[in-house]
Parts: sequence; structure tokens; C-alpha cells
Amino acid sequence: MRVMGVDPGLTRCGLALIETAPGRAVTALDVDVVRTTSDEPLERRLRAVHSVADEWMEIHRPDVVAIERVFAQNQVSTAMGTAQAAGVVALAAAYREIPVAFHTPSEVKAAITGSGRADKKQMTLMITRILGLQKPPSPADAADALALAVCHSWRAPMQGRVDSLDAHVARSRAGFEAKVAAAREAAASDGTGRRDPAADQERARAAARGMARTKGVRW
Amino acid sequence: MRVMGVDPGLTRCGLALIETAPGRAVTALDVDVVRTTSDEPLERRLRAVHSVADEWMEIHRPDVVAIERVFAQNQVSTAMGTAQAAGVVALAAAYREIPVAFHTPSEVKAAITGSGRADKKQMTLMITRILGLQKPPSPADAADALALAVCHSWRAPMQGRVDSLDAHVARSRAGFEAKVAAAREAAASDGTGRRDPAADQERARAAARGMARTKGVRW
Repeated sequence: MRVMGVDPGLTRCGLALIETAPGRAVTALDVDVVRTTSDEPLERRLRAVHSVADEWMEIHRPDVVAIERVFAQNQVSTAMGTAQAAGVVALAAAYREIPVAFHTPSEVKAAITGSGRADKKQMTLMITRILGLQKPPSPADAADALALAVCHSWRAPMQGRVDSLDAHVARSRAGFEAKVAAAREAAASDGTGRRDPAADQERARAAARGMARTKGVRW
Repeated sequence: MRVMGVDPGLTRCGLALIETAPGRAVTALDVDVVRTTSDEPLERRLRAVHSVADEWMEIHRPDVVAIERVFAQNQVSTAMGTAQAAGVVALAAAYREIPVAFHTPSEVKAAITGSGRADKKQMTLMITRILGLQKPPSPADAADALALAVCHSWRAPMQGRVDSLDAHVARSRAGFEAKVAAAREAAASDGTGRRDPAADQERARAAARGMARTKGVRW
């Protein structure tokens, strides 16, 4: 699987491509950093980022694009530009029908170093080690993009399981709620018009037992 | 001049086109609202917004695209998506070499109603009146996009004057600072090595007079 990692930004946008295969080490194939200056108008800066990211997708044909999820909590002034840079890269992927995944900085740090609060030095050290590089990734901004890609390649199979588990839970819950609703319906239309709390409870218990029987899917 | 106004958003993105001419009333030519739902992935939503905005630019050939400037202060959760929607519209304009202008909500309100704190009702009333519409713009979200476009058509000539005034002030200041620096230089190298505060002051006054003489540009 070819994963394109993107550390979004307007001043510097890191791009990286890695290749993974089951049971094989992760290999770094390419890194680049798109730079734009703040004296250019915003739309020109976005075009520069989009244009290079789109060219990368054209050349490298990644199977998935992993982008850092931007939060507005810190540095509000730059967060909007960073989110917009992430947006135009995601847009390029969408037009090419390449799936896009977003990971938070702490997810990336936890995946690479085992700690969501790792510092830059620790991240660079680990990414150099994981990819078996002779020296730290250069330019420095590319390290984050590589980390994003590695993080995705490791998290994606797990995320798939979590998603299918979520879907299973949602189905079970919908089934249970349908049974409870049916039981209520039956109680309301039993001719007498009266509601029997004990019978309601018994029906809810029966529904819960029914739900328990539908369980047992393995993952 | 054809101005395309954009009220950016992922759930609803308002688009409007107006035509202006010196001494003539502003005319509304077209409005539309792009809608996407939150169950779609972000990149698909951005593609939907970009695709419609790009088609508008292809069909309507606006001279300028005016987009609402997004701030992260309020509703941080939606602000990022709104900024990204604004970003992909600006991107479409950049690829078509159409200039992009950003206006804050309070600039738009002040332009349309005279007050930067006008409410939605007041804005709708005024935009209906300004454009000579039989009834309020429909869909309702299009009103903001129309307001953006009208705001730009009124502010753009003024903005041009403010920019040239800013440039003039910057040139004057640079000239003044150069003269003060030259005066200081002369004082420092007058052989004695001593600084004469009275002479310094006199030189500064002379420099200020020199600057005053370079003034007089009309706008």
C-alpha cells in the first residue's frame, strides 16, 4: 500500500510517500516541502499547495492520503490557513477518488513514539529509526509528513476493525430499539388501552435476551 | 463589473452574482446554494462546493470573487469547515486568474445597513431594497452571498484609495526615517564624537519639514 502523508501548512506544507506491505518494513519513497510566503495572496498560496499535491498524486498514485487534522485551539491566526491547506489537498484527492484519512497530532505521536506528548526530537529520532534512514529526514518539515503516513499505515487496519465494531453495535442497538418499540406498540394496542408495567418490563427483558442472541460476531 | 459573492460553508454555501456599473443601480443576476450533509466525508463535501463554484465561474465569468472572511473565535467546530469551503472557492478563482477579496461579516453589515452589528432581518430587508427585488432573496442563504457581492462593489473603489494612501504614508515614513538616520550619521561623524541634543533636534525638525514638503498628493 502506498500512503501519502501530508503535514498541511501555507508557509510550509510537508509531503511524504511511503510503501508498506504485510510483514515487510515500511519504506520511504519520496519527501518534499511546498513553501509559500505570506506576501502572496491567500488564493495563490492555496493554488501552490494544491498544484504540487495534485502533481504528487498524479506521479505517485497513492492508495490513500493521510492528512493531519487541524484544530483551532492553538494559534487561531495560522490554524485557518493550515485548515485551508489541508482542505485543498483533500480536494485534490477527492477529484482523483483517492480515500482521505485525518489523524490528530497526538494520534501520530502515539503511533510513532508510544506517547501522545512526544517532542519533535523524539519524533525525528523514531521516524529515522522506523524507516531505517541513514540520517534524519531532510528537509526537517518532511519528518512530520512521513510520521503521518507511517501512523496511517499502522492505524488503518485497526481503524477498520473499530469501524466494523461500531457498525455492529449500531445495528444491535437499532434492533433492540425496534423490539422495544414493537413491544410498546403491542402493549398499547392490546384492546384494553391500559398499560401493564410488569408486562412492559417482561417484554423489554425478552427483547434484551433476543438482542443478546444476535450477538457473537467475532472480530 | 460582475461580482461573485460567496457565503462559505459546508452545510450550505451561498453563491450570488451581481452586476454593477458606475452611476447605475446594482442588479442581481443569479443566486444558488450548495448543500452537503455531514454524513459525507469532508473531502467529498469540499469537492461538491468547489465543483459548483468552479462551474459558476465558468458560466458567469465574474471579474472578482468576494468571499466572507472566516474567524475561528465563534463556533470553532464549524469554523474550520467554513474556512476550508472558502479556501476551495478561492482556489477555483486562483486557477482562473480571477482576483479574490475577503470581507469580514461586520464590514458587510456596515456596508449594507450602516451598522456592523445589524441583525439578519435588517440585512435581508436592506439587500431586498438595494437590489430592487419584489421579495426577499430565496433561498434565504443566498441573501448573505448577495450582501457580500454588493459590499465588495461598494468597498472596492474605496479600498483602492485606502491602499494607495497606505502606500503613500509608507513611502513618506521611509523617507523620513532615512533622513533622520542620515542626520544621526552626520552628527555621529562630525569629528568631535560628541552628540549635541539641540543640534539633533534641529536636524529632526528639518527632516520633518523636508517630509512635509514631499506631501501634497491628492486622493
